Parts: sequence; C-alpha cells; structure tokens
Amino acid sequence: MPGNTFGQLFRITTAGESHGPGNVVIVDGVPPGIPISVDDLQVDLDRRKPGQSKIVTQRKESDRPEILSGVFEGKTTGTSIAILVRNEDQRSRDYSEIKDLYRPGHADYSFDAKYGFRDYRGGGRSSARETTARVAAGVIAKKLIHEEFGGEVIAYVSQVGDIQADVENPADVSLDRVEKSADGSANIVRCPDPAAAERMIALIDECRKAGDSIGGAATIVAKGVPAGLGEPVFDKIKADFAKALFSLPAVLGVEYGIGFGCVNMRGSQHNDLFTTSDDDGSNKIVTKSNRHGGMLGGITTGMPIVLRTAVKPTSSLPIEQETVTRDGSPATIQTKGRHDPCLLPRFIPMAEAMIAIVLADHWLRWKAQKRGTSVD
Amino acid sequence: MPGNTFGQLFRITTAGESHGPGNVVIVDGVPPGIPISVDDLQVDLDRRKPGQSKIVTQRKESDRPEILSGVFEGKTTGTSIAILVRNEDQRSRDYSEIKDLYRPGHADYSFDAKYGFRDYRGGGRSSARETTARVAAGVIAKKLIHEEFGGEVIAYVSQVGDIQADVENPADVSLDRVEKSADGSANIVRCPDPAAAERMIALIDECRKAGDSIGGAATIVAKGVPAGLGEPVFDKIKADFAKALFSLPAVLGVEYGIGFGCVNMRGSQHNDLFTTSDDDGSNKIVTKSNRHGGMLGGITTGMPIVLRTAVKPTSSLPIEQETVTRDGSPATIQTKGRHDPCLLPRFIPMAEAMIAIVLADHWLRWKAQKRGTSVD
Amino acid sequence: MPGNTFGQLFRITTAGESHGPGNVVIVDGVPPGIPISVDDLQVDLDRRKPGQSKIVTQRKESDRPEILSGVFEGKTTGTSIAILVRNEDQRSRDYSEIKDLYRPGHADYSFDAKYGFRDYRGGGRSSARETTARVAAGVIAKKLIHEEFGGEVIAYVSQVGDIQADVENPADVSLDRVEKSADGSANIVRCPDPAAAERMIALIDECRKAGDSIGGAATIVAKGVPAGLGEPVFDKIKADFAKALFSLPAVLGVEYGIGFGCVNMRGSQHNDLFTTSDDDGSNKIVTKSNRHGGMLGGITTGMPIVLRTAVKPTSSLPIEQETVTRDGSPATIQTKGRHDPCLLPRFIPMAEAMIAIVLADHWLRWKAQKRGTSVD
Amino acid sequence: MPGNTFGQLFRITTAGESHGPGNVVIVDGVPPGIPISVDDLQVDLDRRKPGQSKIVTQRKESDRPEILSGVFEGKTTGTSIAILVRNEDQRSRDYSEIKDLYRPGHADYSFDAKYGFRDYRGGGRSSARETTARVAAGVIAKKLIHEEFGGEVIAYVSQVGDIQADVENPADVSLDRVEKSADGSANIVRCPDPAAAERMIALIDECRKAGDSIGGAATIVAKGVPAGLGEPVFDKIKADFAKALFSLPAVLGVEYGIGFGCVNMRGSQHNDLFTTSDDDGSNKIVTKSNRHGGMLGGITTGMPIVLRTAVKPTSSLPIEQETVTRDGSPATIQTKGRHDPCLLPRFIPMAEAMIAIVLADHWLRWKAQKRGTSVD
Repeated sequence: MPGNTFGQLFRITTAGESHGPGNVVIVDGVPPGIPISVDDLQVDLDRRKPGQSKIVTQRKESDRPEILSGVFEGKTTGTSIAILVRNEDQRSRDYSEIKDLYRPGHADYSFDAKYGFRDYRGGGRSSARETTARVAAGVIAKKLIHEEFGGEVIAYVSQVGDIQADVENPADVSLDRVEKSADGSANIVRCPDPAAAERMIALIDECRKAGDSIGGAATIVAKGVPAGLGEPVFDKIKADFAKALFSLPAVLGVEYGIGFGCVNMRGSQHNDLFTTSDDDGSNKIVTKSNRHGGMLGGITTGMPIVLRTAVKPTSSLPIEQETVTRDGSPATIQTKGRHDPCLLPRFIPMAEAMIAIVLADHWLRWKAQKRGTSVD
Repeated sequence: MPGNTFGQLFRITTAGESHGPGNVVIVDGVPPGIPISVDDLQVDLDRRKPGQSKIVTQRKESDRPEILSGVFEGKTTGTSIAILVRNEDQRSRDYSEIKDLYRPGHADYSFDAKYGFRDYRGGGRSSARETTARVAAGVIAKKLIHEEFGGEVIAYVSQVGDIQADVENPADVSLDRVEKSADGSANIVRCPDPAAAERMIALIDECRKAGDSIGGAATIVAKGVPAGLGEPVFDKIKADFAKALFSLPAVLGVEYGIGFGCVNMRGSQHNDLFTTSDDDGSNKIVTKSNRHGGMLGGITTGMPIVLRTAVKPTSSLPIEQETVTRDGSPATIQTKGRHDPCLLPRFIPMAEAMIAIVLADHWLRWKAQKRGTSVD
Repeated sequence: MPGNTFGQLFRITTAGESHGPGNVVIVDGVPPGIPISVDDLQVDLDRRKPGQSKIVTQRKESDRPEILSGVFEGKTTGTSIAILVRNEDQRSRDYSEIKDLYRPGHADYSFDAKYGFRDYRGGGRSSARETTARVAAGVIAKKLIHEEFGGEVIAYVSQVGDIQADVENPADVSLDRVEKSADGSANIVRCPDPAAAERMIALIDECRKAGDSIGGAATIVAKGVPAGLGEPVFDKIKADFAKALFSLPAVLGVEYGIGFGCVNMRGSQHNDLFTTSDDDGSNKIVTKSNRHGGMLGGITTGMPIVLRTAVKPTSSLPIEQETVTRDGSPATIQTKGRHDPCLLPRFIPMAEAMIAIVLADHWLRWKAQKRGTSVD
Repeated sequence: MPGNTFGQLFRITTAGESHGPGNVVIVDGVPPGIPISVDDLQVDLDRRKPGQSKIVTQRKESDRPEILSGVFEGKTTGTSIAILVRNEDQRSRDYSEIKDLYRPGHADYSFDAKYGFRDYRGGGRSSARETTARVAAGVIAKKLIHEEFGGEVIAYVSQVGDIQADVENPADVSLDRVEKSADGSANIVRCPDPAAAERMIALIDECRKAGDSIGGAATIVAKGVPAGLGEPVFDKIKADFAKALFSLPAVLGVEYGIGFGCVNMRGSQHNDLFTTSDDDGSNKIVTKSNRHGGMLGGITTGMPIVLRTAVKPTSSLPIEQETVTRDGSPATIQTKGRHDPCLLPRFIPMAEAMIAIVLADHWLRWKAQKRGTSVD
C-alpha cells in the first residue's frame, strides 16, 4: 500500500510538491451534514503559512484553498472532499547547482537511493510544503470531533533550545493563550507562558542572525475525548498518535503522559489511582493524577490526552557545510533559501491536525463497532 | 479497519487472550522459499517466555508453537502462515473478586468503556500474552530480512531505573553480548554492559522484594538495512517503527538517533555531514556521525537504525492500591498474580520482532515499486 | 496487501491447506455481545462438508470447529475471533505421481508460475478446503446482520446443466425449502423446486457414473437489508458482492437483478418505477418491480437483493485427460481422488457466507459514517 | 475504509461531482521513471468524453486534464500523482424541480437513504462524470503494464440490443479496429465487426429518436499478461476484475472465458488441456483452448484474459415515467438532460481503464512477493 494515505475510516490521501502546481488532499469518510467552508480552512492554513511573523521563513504564499468536491450548500455530503492549495512562490532561480549535491539533514540522498531520481527543486515531495494538505484536512477533523463529541485539540510550543515553558496543567491551555499575547497581539512563537515566549523569540532571532537554527518541543493536548477510543493491540490509539506525529517532518521523539520520565519510576509511584469526580455532575470515573496521559491499554480513559514531541533544528542552513555529490565527490553546500530558524511556531497547526485526524478516525471506528446502533 | 492486523505487505493478524485456548497469528505476504521451522520460532519464544529467570514472572508456559499452514517441506510456500501457541498455565483460581474492580495502570476501565463487556480473567486481550503471536511472526520477519538483504535486528536493555548501560556504539552490540554473560551463562537482564547488568539485576530484585516494580529503556538497532526503505509522507519508516513500538504494552516514549536530545541543539551541531566510506570496498556514501539514527526524510540512509523506547514499571503490584469498582464505589486492590518486577528483559524479543516486521514490510514495498524488475 | 484478508470493517483473514494440519480464520471487527457457539458454526460447516450425501464427494471430514479466542461466556467480546477447523482425512497416499503434472482446469500451472514452488498434495492453498474458514466466519456474519438489522441470506441451486428450477419469486424461498424435501428428508441438491431437484439429482448421478462432472448456477437472496448500504464509487455493494462470489473457486460469472438480460432491453422496459408500500404499515418507498436486484447506484434500496452465479463443472475427473509435465513433456492424467460430480450443493453455504460477510461489512461501514451517533 | 479508493499497490483515490468544480484522482504507487504527459491522458479522455459523436450525449466538456504532482521532466517521480479535470458544462438550469423526485433507475433514493442529504444537481457523486478520474488513472496503468511487461488492454462493444458482433477470436482485435472504420473514419460505436457496427448505430439512433435507450455488452481483452498474477484466495485476479467492472455505473453482469456458458457443460467438455507452443520460440506451456479466459485458481495462466460485461440501458429518459417524491407522493418525471441513448461506446475506455488498473496493481503485488530480488 503506497504511503500517501493516512487513516482508516477518516482517511486522507495527499499529493503535491514544493515546486509543482500545488498540493491536494482528498478527505474520505466524513459523515454528511458537517458545516465546512473555505474560511474555516483558511484559519489553520494561516497559522501554518510562511511569512506570518519575523521568526519564520519569509517566503510568500497566500495558501488559499479551493474545495473541489464533497461540500454542497455549505455542508459535507458524505462523499470524498478534495481540497487544492496552489503553490505561488516558486522562485524561478536556478536549482541546478544543488541538483547533484546532498544537503545534510535532508532527504536528498535517501530519495535518490529510493527512486534513483528526484525532483530536486526545493525538496519536491519531501518538502514540508505537503503539510498544507494535512492542515486543511485537520480542520475537517477538528470540526468532526467537535460536532460529534465536543472534542478539542490544542498544541503549543513547550520548549525551544533550553528554554522551557512553565505550564502547570497542559489541559488548561486555551487556543487563545497559544495564539495571542496578553496585549492582544499575535503570540508569534505559540508558547502560552509569556515570559518563556519572550526568551524563545530572542533565542530564535539570535540563531537566525547567526545563520543557524534551533530545535524545540511541542505539547499537544486533546480534551473532551470520551473513554473507549482505540483498539487493544496494534491500533492502540497511542500508536496511531505516535505514527501521526512521527510522520511529520523533523520529529525525532514522541512521548505521552509521564513519557521517558517513567524509566526511573517505581510502579507504586507511577500508577494513577482510580476515583470518581462529580465536577460535571456525572460522578464519573477518573484518575487522581494523569501520568498515563489519557490512555491505558492503548484506549482512551476520558482524561485529557497529553503528548510531547521533539522537533529537530532546521537542516537548511545559510552557513557552509561539507557534503558530497551524487558520485561521492567532496563538496560544500550553503542553502540560500529563506528558511525557518526554528520549526516550532509553524509546527503547531500541523501537530494539531494530525492528532485531530487520529481522533476522528478512531471515533468513526468506535461508532462502527458500537453495539446496538439502530437503522433509524 | 479492525485493529488486529499490522503491516501492509508483510502483514500479521493476531487473535488470542491470556486465559483462552491460545494465541494465533496469521502471517501473510511472505515470499516463497524461505526456510522456517518450529525450532526457529522457539528460540525467540523462549527469550520472551515467563519463568526463564529469577527476575521475571514465575508463571509457567512452555510456549510451543504449531505451524498450521504456509510451510511445506521446511520452506514457506508464499501463502498465509498460521501459527498457534496454546496457553497452558491458566490457573483456575477465582477471578470474580477482581471482576468489578479497575486495576490501576491496566486497561480494565478503558475496555469496559469501549466494549461495555470484558474478559476479566487476567486482562483478556489486553494481556501481554498476545505478544507471543508477534514474537513468532517476528522470527519469520527476521528470516526474511536476513535472506533477502542481510539485515539484522538486535535490541538490548539500556536502562533500568537510573542505571544506564555504557555502550559506546549501539551498532556494535551483538546478539551474543545481549544473551550471554562473559562466563557463558545467560545474561538474564539482556544488558550488554556487564557492570550495569549486575546492578540492574540487583535493583530489579530489590523492587521485587519490596512488592514493587521498576521502569526502564530499551535500545533497538537494525543493521545491514539498505538505503531507500520508507515512504516520503505518512509511511515514513520512522513513523512505522514508532507505531510498532508504541503498539507494545507499557511503552510511553520512542525516539531515534539523537531523539529528544535534539531539542536544545543548533542545526550546525545537529546535521550529520555526508562523506564516503571505503570500509567495505564500495566507496559508498555515508554520514560522518549518526545523530539521524539511519533515517532522513523518513527513508533509510544505509546507516545503522537506532531507536530507544521507554517502558513503564509493571502496573500489577502485590501491594495494596486504591481504586474504584465498576459502579464507582471506593475499593482497594492487591494483585496476587506472579508478575514481572521489571518488564524490560522480556520486552527485548518483542521489540526486535516489531522492528523486524516493519523492515520486512517496507522491504516488500520497496520491491513492489522498484523500477525495472523483469518477469523472469 | 496480501490476498488472504477479505472485508474492511468486518474482516476475515484465513490460512490453511487441504493437506496441512487445518484451516484457520480470524474474524475481526465483530461488535461485542453477539451470541455465538461451536454449535452455531457446525450447522453451516455441516452443509458444506464432504460426505453429506450420495451426490457429493465421499471424503470424510468431521469439520469440528474450535473457537480459540474472542468469545467469552457465549458472547463475542469485540476482539478478534479465531476459529480452527482441523483436517482429518489426509490420506497418506502417494502424490508424487502428480507432483510434476498440471491437472487441466486446476491452479497447478498458475501456482508454479507464481511461486515457482507449490504444495502439490491435493491442491494446497488452492483447494476448496479453504472455504471451511469462510463458512465458519459466515455464520458470525449471519448472526451479526440478524441481530443488528434482521437481515437474512439464503442461497439455492437454480440450475444444473440444462435443468432450471422454477421459482416464481426468489425472495420467497425459505431456508427450510432449500434444506428439506416435502417428506422432511434432506434436500440433498438444495434446489427449492422439488421436480427440478429430482431431475438434477438424476443428472448429477449420471455424470458421476460417467466419470464426468456438470456445471450449474446458484441464486443468492438477501432479505431485510435496509436501504442505504454501499458506497457510491468503487465500493458499490454490487462490486463487493461480485468480488465475494468471484473469490470462490469455480465461479465464472455473476449477475444481479435482470443481469445479462438487460443487454437487449430498452430503458423504458428496464427501469423499476418507484411507488410506496404499506405492507408493513410503514408506507415506505419501494419499486414496483425488482429488475435492479435491490441495488441502485451501488447502494441498497431496501428491495430484496438477488444475485446469480455460474459455477463450472468440477475439473478433477476420473477419466483420462491430456496434459503436460512441468518441463512441457506430453502426459496424461486421471484424477483418482473422490471428487464432487457437481459443485453446486456444497457451494450454497459458501455463497451465503460470502454475501453475509459483505453485508456485515457494509453495515459496519454505514454505522461508522452515520451522522449523529451519540457517545451513550 | 471509505469507498473512494481502489487498488492496493497501484492505488487510485478519487473525488468530484457532476456539477462541482471538477474531478480529481490521486494515483499512488507508480514506480519512478515512467513517461507520462497531458497528451497521453487526453487520448483516452477524448474516447470517454461527451459530444464525440452523434450517438452519444451532446453535452460539451473539453475534459482537459491538469497534472498537479508526481511528474517531473516528463516522467513519474515515484510519488503520488494528482490529476484534475475541471467541469465546464454545468448548465445553470433549475434543478429544483427534480430535487425531491426520485428518478427511476438512478441512485437518488438510495443516496437519500444513505446520507439523508444529497447533491441533487445531475446526480452529484453518483454521476458517471466521476469516471473521468478513472480514465485518466487508467492511462497511467496502461503505460505501466506496457513498460514493465508489454501488457495491453483492449475493450470493444460486442453487443447492442440483440445485435451481436461476429468476432472469431477476441484476442485478435486491435485498438485500431475498435477506433477506426475501414474507410479511416471514426468507428463511433467501437464494435470491431463493421456489419454489426452499422446495425448497432442504426438501432441506437432509433432508440434516441424514440426517447428511449438500449442496453449492450462489452468484451475486454488483456494480452501479454505473464502467468502468475493474482492471489490464491480472496484476491483472485478474476475477483478483482469483477469488482473493477461492477464498480462502473450500469454494469449488471460480468463473466470471463466461457462464463455463464459453463452452466450446462460437462467437465470433460469444459477443461482446457495443457500443451506447449513454440509460436514465440519459447516452447512455453499453454492451453489448447481458452474457455478459462486466461485465469485458473484466480491466477493468470499467460493465455489472453477475456471478460464480458452487461451494461444496462440508460436510466435517464426523455419520456415520462411514474415515480414518487421524497415524502412518497406519486409524481411523474421526464428527464430533459442530454443523455446517451446507449452507454456502450463511451463505456469502452472506462472498462479498459479499470482492467489496466487491476493488472498494474497485481503486477506490483507480484513484484513485492517475488523471491530473490536483489538490492541493486
């Protein structure tokens, strides 16, 4: 099965390169009757798009989506939804100089090994430009989980370099805190801790000026998710979340709940004890703590889902680096493009999209296997 | 699509519970002509099995596999291979006392939320007993990758509690060092650093005596993997490795190469530079360092693949823990079963199996899309 | 994706050969709480089994199923169900004489072309013995569609040679008429027209005595199926029914409704006009006629689904036939096994099983995409 | 799994409606290096397109494809290929009059039953306009099978009403005979028997004038297909061909080889005997006759593949027909659109596309499982 499809029942299939006509996504499996518009899509596409602030790449793309099918009179029809986002800023500069060079940290060499052939203009299919398609599909997934069970996914930048955000409870972070500063201006680094955000911006700016880049981490929270989503063995929902995040460019690590912190814990410290909560008047079963990050046995428990992911520093650097050519001759390379000094601010909507897509998918799977649905 | 199948072209489907008749795996997509025997399967089943040493659970299972199909005259036929491992030690003790209790850290509550119904005897489908099926299938995957491209997968325990193994180069660890101590006796903790191994055993033993358990980490290395495996977008091989590992019980985190260490690195420090190596006389393209863990753009580079995973401390504890019943009434629970004080030693063959299965799968996918295969 | 799995959400995966230890099926995706027992499975396995009457093969197999997983206290748990049917009558006769011969009408040559290697004992994986697994899974599918929407699938023999059953309305045929004669004895040919049944039995017997075999046709009806099952484009339910039937051995043709009879009809004669029916007090929309066989645009209309399939005469013949050896040398072959002179009587439960599986699958798919399912 | 994807390794996913912006297909799994151009796509799109002759619908669509991705410097890159065909002739007439009426023979009622909601303009997703996407993808499949194994697929009209084409050997029909008349003009009915073609055209014309339509049959032949394609059990290649053809609009029956003719044959008459042929100097194994239509046990034998399919008369009729409204009230309907009086001439490229896609898919599957492919 080729690798351009993700999800089982809420299923996206994408195509597109950085320097081709555009990126397309077909979203399949969406129930009928969900309201969706170009404006809805634009919100997250704008959060992902280049040129949105001084700390991201200055390439220019308006990233206007066109809905080609599957929506009629403002609502999904239940049939496949195709969305096209055309590329605009495909500078006609000469790529021939890098055609035979392998950029360190990029997929140039591995693509050549795989296909014996590649679209060398700006990375082709390996460019993060393909994530426009994911972000557009993610908006539909977010709509679906909100309409069907009141679910919400919020991601934020929790670390850049050695600067960590101080966030008491990830589940309390609102989209507003991620997107806006206290003074109402855009929170360009998408870290909900204002003090950390300021220092992060300074660090990113410093790296940019030095012709360098910096890594970071994002935290993703899903709230309002009912207990019972996920499958017991291979399709544990934690496994699908991990696949979703690792499928994004530059992700080197994923953990949930206490994550790698479990390695030196004892069981008696680690287990989250069950109790009941009457916060919403339902006296429902909850856990006293959430080291399990909302999933046990690969199935949601109804507690907030909390994931954390490591994102490497941008590989494209304006400083000179050693490499080799296709035939193995030593060479140097210096990437002249306009690249992000830190990937995290634009990574946030991508991560949200992928987590929302997994939730939408497992929700539909849960509905399918649910006992007792009647015909009417 | 239900969740009991893993892989696209090398595909395994499993069934079975801890206290039912047994566990079954159907392995589909295996090319014809690969030698396989019950003895081959037994090797890794023995590495996974309970009762193998003093630091693992003392349950008794002989875990003898029966090959039901797909092998003729000692070789795979190309058709589906079914393997059955019967359960033996299903103690007829009374489970009714835990029938309505939710064990902390276990899938009891989430299963009830999902199915409204569960096989409460020892965890049913959520028991790690299902991994017998994976380990059996993993042996076939290991055979396939060895026969077709000389690949090898070796996992080892790299950390237990705060004791870390001192391993200079993960790619240099041999199966022999993982399985045997210097004196030829079994290396029961499966850590290739003898000094650390000794301390790990002592720590695990201490936890066991205290009625507690301890977490740890495993490192998995794949060697001899050709450059070019993996798909550019969703089925990046790193994403499939992550899904494979997170689908195992108790895994809370996965990273590869430098992993979470990338968060506070700069791009200039992080990028692995390309060069050539004449070590095997081929003057092939390699990288000077391996912070990328053998994968760029989600596709293998030919460098060793290095993954690391966090495994939580066993949830079942002989000490008393607070919990609730199905109807939310407060209760206490004390698990009387014979559980592992540390999951890591038996986790090693499971992790190897899953990584080998992903490699086998992507290898077959690579063959499918390879240009120029002739009919003969 | 390997070819031993069928269905998307109600999904079966099978393994097994004619002369190996047995046949296994893993049924995945079944909702929890559906009652199922070994006795339920046995009913249809007995309808399929050899030796059941004088007009079928006289091989002896008791075909006792063992449920290995997924059923607890008599009900499905929602996890994967494995069923094993062991082979018994694997006569230890010498197959070496046919090892290098290609039996006319069989898969010997095509298997060799595909795998370069085959289990030559009685056909191996190409033997119709694999349909035990399908029939067992079909029982679960029948239970599911009956429990969830009151659906029923009944197949019968509608033609043997040139003898056609006279059946006014296929939707009126009951299981009882298919299985029992007027005098209460077994209706061994499974044709609900008693006069035709008698003549069919005589014809089959005549062929058997002549060392020959005869073809025939089966009609399959599904009743109680709600309108709305099926997908608009590739997974039209008619396409999945056709795939299901063509996946059975010996099927050379499938049609539904008026079928090939449409070729020389005009649209004005062919269209079924919509009207309403108050037969069940619901004043529901129906069609006046059912040339469309219960499906329009690939989606069910609520009218009875009617399919017809052509089954070729058994290829194995006790008379001598010309053929070649693996190296192309001319040879003759005479199959000494105990074969069915007509495949149709035992084909009936296989066809029912496959149609029930498709209905169960599309029902679960319909549930997944249905708008407005609530969490509780 | 949603229903807008077809194929496993050569995989197409489509979206689009009759009256939306256009139709899109994403073709995934294509090996790199296959030459493909817009002109290549146009050839078959023109064979499918409306307005091409006097015996098809007179709607006007230029059906110009745009390749959005996956092709670089005239060759496939190995990544997903997206193709967009915009709709042009979406007459702005008022559909509100048919909004609540169920057209006989159409999917209006079944769509409403499924989705509770539909795009009523010209059928929406149920319109045969979606087949533009299939035909475009089919061109890539044809290229692939030709480049990789010299395969070719040719379909032709073999019957319209009671007029049958007289074709001695389907495998001898060339594309030229299907597309061109003896005088070099277009063979507008795509029947290779000139005398029958003339009578078919007259019959279609007569139906058109009468405000009626007529059914027919198509024969599809695949040549140059190596022995060994197909899977032994569920994914028998005959089953995938059948699913492919039944997924096309208006198909009511499919058969291969002798097809329904087998029903009253004896085994001794039916079996094709094996022999050898030295026609191409290879002394390869063939059968003396081809009643098996090139497939045994669901796997190709190397003999020509021959399929036949029944296509119903167009349901849309300019004459008045009885029906009901959504609420069940009696009504009449008269379709004023410009419809095909016979679907067959435009059906030919659709059928070819689907058969080529199945062959491409099984070819890639064969490559994946083939033993002994080396890395280089």
